[in-house]
Amino acid sequence: MEITRKNFKESLTTVYEAIEEADFLAIDGEFSGISDGPPVCTLTNGLDTPEERYQKLRKHSMDFLLFQFGLCTFKHHHAEAKYIMKSFNFYVFPKPFNRTSPDIKFVCQSSSIDFLASQGFDFNKVFRDGVPYLNREEERQLREQYEEKLSQANGAGTPSFISPNTAKGPVVVPEEHKVFIDKVVPTSTHQKPTISKTKSWREKYRNLTSFNNRIVESIPIKDRYIVISRADEEERKRREQQKQAKEQVRSQERVSAALWEELNDAVGFSRIIHAISKSAKLVVGHNMLLDIMHTIHQFYCPLPEVSNSSAQVSICIYTRILDTKLMASTQPFKEIINNTSLADLEKRLKESPFHPPVVESAEGFPRYDTAAEQLHEAGYDAYITGLCFISMANYLGSFLTPPKLRVSSRSKIVEPFFNKLFLMRVMDIPYVNLQGPDLQPKRENVLHVSFPKEWKTSDLYQLFSAFGNILVSWIDDTSAFVTLTQPDQVKIAVNTSRYAESYRIQTYAEYVEKKQNSTHAKRKWVEDGWKEVETKRLKTQYTTYASQESFNNAVHRSV
Amino acid sequence: MEITRKNFKESLTTVYEAIEEADFLAIDGEFSGISDGPPVCTLTNGLDTPEERYQKLRKHSMDFLLFQFGLCTFKHHHAEAKYIMKSFNFYVFPKPFNRTSPDIKFVCQSSSIDFLASQGFDFNKVFRDGVPYLNREEERQLREQYEEKLSQANGAGTPSFISPNTAKGPVVVPEEHKVFIDKVVPTSTHQKPTISKTKSWREKYRNLTSFNNRIVESIPIKDRYIVISRADEEERKRREQQKQAKEQVRSQERVSAALWEELNDAVGFSRIIHAISKSAKLVVGHNMLLDIMHTIHQFYCPLPEVSNSSAQVSICIYTRILDTKLMASTQPFKEIINNTSLADLEKRLKESPFHPPVVESAEGFPRYDTAAEQLHEAGYDAYITGLCFISMANYLGSFLTPPKLRVSSRSKIVEPFFNKLFLMRVMDIPYVNLQGPDLQPKRENVLHVSFPKEWKTSDLYQLFSAFGNILVSWIDDTSAFVTLTQPDQVKIAVNTSRYAESYRIQTYAEYVEKKQNSTHAKRKWVEDGWKEVETKRLKTQYTTYASQESFNNAVHRSV
Repeated sequence: MEITRKNFKESLTTVYEAIEEADFLAIDGEFSGISDGPPVCTLTNGLDTPEERYQKLRKHSMDFLLFQFGLCTFKHHHAEAKYIMKSFNFYVFPKPFNRTSPDIKFVCQSSSIDFLASQGFDFNKVFRDGVPYLNREEERQLREQYEEKLSQANGAGTPSFISPNTAKGPVVVPEEHKVFIDKVVPTSTHQKPTISKTKSWREKYRNLTSFNNRIVESIPIKDRYIVISRADEEERKRREQQKQAKEQVRSQERVSAALWEELNDAVGFSRIIHAISKSAKLVVGHNMLLDIMHTIHQFYCPLPEVSNSSAQVSICIYTRILDTKLMASTQPFKEIINNTSLADLEKRLKESPFHPPVVESAEGFPRYDTAAEQLHEAGYDAYITGLCFISMANYLGSFLTPPKLRVSSRSKIVEPFFNKLFLMRVMDIPYVNLQGPDLQPKRENVLHVSFPKEWKTSDLYQLFSAFGNILVSWIDDTSAFVTLTQPDQVKIAVNTSRYAESYRIQTYAEYVEKKQNSTHAKRKWVEDGWKEVETKRLKTQYTTYASQESFNNAVHRSV
Repeated sequence: MEITRKNFKESLTTVYEAIEEADFLAIDGEFSGISDGPPVCTLTNGLDTPEERYQKLRKHSMDFLLFQFGLCTFKHHHAEAKYIMKSFNFYVFPKPFNRTSPDIKFVCQSSSIDFLASQGFDFNKVFRDGVPYLNREEERQLREQYEEKLSQANGAGTPSFISPNTAKGPVVVPEEHKVFIDKVVPTSTHQKPTISKTKSWREKYRNLTSFNNRIVESIPIKDRYIVISRADEEERKRREQQKQAKEQVRSQERVSAALWEELNDAVGFSRIIHAISKSAKLVVGHNMLLDIMHTIHQFYCPLPEVSNSSAQVSICIYTRILDTKLMASTQPFKEIINNTSLADLEKRLKESPFHPPVVESAEGFPRYDTAAEQLHEAGYDAYITGLCFISMANYLGSFLTPPKLRVSSRSKIVEPFFNKLFLMRVMDIPYVNLQGPDLQPKRENVLHVSFPKEWKTSDLYQLFSAFGNILVSWIDDTSAFVTLTQPDQVKIAVNTSRYAESYRIQTYAEYVEKKQNSTHAKRKWVEDGWKEVETKRLKTQYTTYASQESFNNAVHRSV
């Protein structure tokens, strides 16, 4: 189901329902680009630590826009042994809400835009009809503005619509206010005909009944009687005042409700993320590190400075997260799945020893055909991701005694895969751990080399020519990691370089130790070092084409 | 006429012709945003010098994309006393040309995108079908790559397609190569049937004629004869070699032509700018400083560091430039034109003392209806701009003796308006002078005030409360210009502040002198000072809404 600003409000109940009833959710995002600095191949150094990768993505990927968000909900139908899925494809755009709302600037990367264009992506839907959103801080500020408006409109007095969720934890869908609006809005529109009836009746009987005099009369209107009592001046005033007070309360309620609705409109798509968050359902994605970072950044808060805090925010938002790319790259799948790109994984999981699950679209929802391959539409990618998860989870059932054909998303056997995100192109640290410390690889055959900035990859190849095959991972324009084939070569390399003047070699362990010691010293990030690095790298003939391909893949995160 | 990647090549001749035959050209651009830093109201300080304004726009506006370029050509039809116009609306997008071509990142400003979306702007046309482009340096690099490819393919030898325009001046459309391609491509395809005829003929006569023997025979093919001579072994080898050499030359020519065409495709939209440049026709625009800066930046070279060099590049590209907003703000128009926004100007110029010119679309070109107002489509805006220029130029004819009803774009009387660009929101320097020094206003009633960074606009109002109305123009978070009503108050203000500790007041003249003296010292631009400034400014109640409106206007440059 495609959701834009045009049908967002009327679809909310459907989306909330789908989330509430689901066994698990699958998500996917499409972005306006990947890296505004180094090419992705430089951005994702094979020897990055999770912290380093996080810092790079935080610095170079967050100015892009997540402009399509796919959500696919899966509910198991036990009697018919099948899954019912509901797929939603949200177009998202930070349309300025009013004159004082933030005027977001975002970056587009022409290769990413061009790729999406070639897949038939509808940019007009994003830019004309995208659902707006606010992060928590923007929501808080707007609420404050409204409260000020209200309290100005009401004279003094506390405004009646402070959300109890303002201060603590993630902002959730304010159900209590929805009910409030449901109650108030129909009431106020319902009153109008009654009032006008009274009016016309009053006109009719103008000559007969005077409000200045105590006339008692009862006039039948349908099956009820309106009793008119003859009131004296004081009584009349009291009633007038009462009436006015009531009117004022009603008017305040109307204003409050209207402002409240405006605020909800501005919070927009973030309400979907809040609902997912509130549901605490398992959220499945494929290679989802960037999806999660963008979700935090766009709909919650600026990304925390260290990855550890970010991990906490991630879990705070999604509670339980499962990355199908990580799952497919881990035992027992690792050995039987060669290619973990989303498209390839989906195909592989249709074959033995896996069993394609029976999944049907719910009534009124579009049917996706996996044979037609609508990849790179976020809703479809989320659907495929969900399929992959079901197949892999079910396969785990074959290891149980007795074996089970279906494994639920709540099963203990799936838990080891929770809250670990795939770490692209890092061979010895497979994942970012959202709950607990990251893995610390020893990297016994890795050297850290510093050298003059004139050096190129070929200089490193020459320096290490005695050691056979090496792998060079650039850090900045004056340092790189060099991986040797044998760990015992490391000592030799360090020893032979002891008296070298132009370069320095140390073991990975030494490098890490020194780095940790200088934690308090200002971290040295060579800001534009990558440009230099890239020039150097491209001058070696090996990587140009391959890197561009992995780049293209990376752009669409289905590697 | 709408031009995308799909019809760009087939439309080139039409565009070139229109430019060649035109009396003058009108242009307009649409961008993905205006300022990625301060709001436009802060970006355009009312006391900016042209140099300062240039620096701000260079820093904060150039990361946006010029993605729609309007060109409208006007040719006078003397016999029928009317103009014939041809309007082109180019969609422009930096689609990566190949794997090694630059992967452009550009910024979008949501308010600008939202505004264009509300005007029905077609983003899909930009992103899916936009015409690509290269600046001169990118073109040079690509040409080098191709030359290397060619020389590798040909063994040694110099490649045959070096453009004579590589080194000097702006790159113009390489006509000589177009002719070259026209000659080569048809030739090579035309040869094929001849060769195959020869083959089939050779097969037919295989038994009769042996290449090892000297057989003389003539075979009629249509009305010509092919003479077969019996050749001895040496002669045969010589001929084979000749043939091979010829084949090689032809193949080189084919490769060269194909690469040359590829290169032209990559240069893409820049060829239109080159053609305008080569034509040296008068180029008319409305409030066109940003248009010109984007044109240089996107299609020529990174913007020079100082505005003076940039002015030189501008004239190098467009030769003669006329800004209708400046013209309308200058004598003799200033007094009779109140509002110089493009839409208002167009309406005003339909009324007395002006005469709306007779302008017709050329055959096969879309007719624009000024009553229907298709503003903010670049082609239409260029058209309207051209109309405004004709009306104003013709009005100048009423000052001639004898008066003239029509004034040509080549008339001496128009020349005072050449090569001056409107400088938005600066009251005392109306324009950026592209030929010669900029105006130096005295600003005798302006003070430069330095103060602690905690100060807000209200503090300045308080400080100068004795002087009546003042105008505050923020520079950064610790300084501002304050304009007083009377120049004679300036001395008093400076004197009274002599012993102040927290702030410093100097005259504008003193400020400029000190600044010039410190030219060699590193210029102090408080990088993110504007954020602070903006917060302060917004806290005063005066400007919020007005600034947003002028901002919206500024976005579409029809102020």
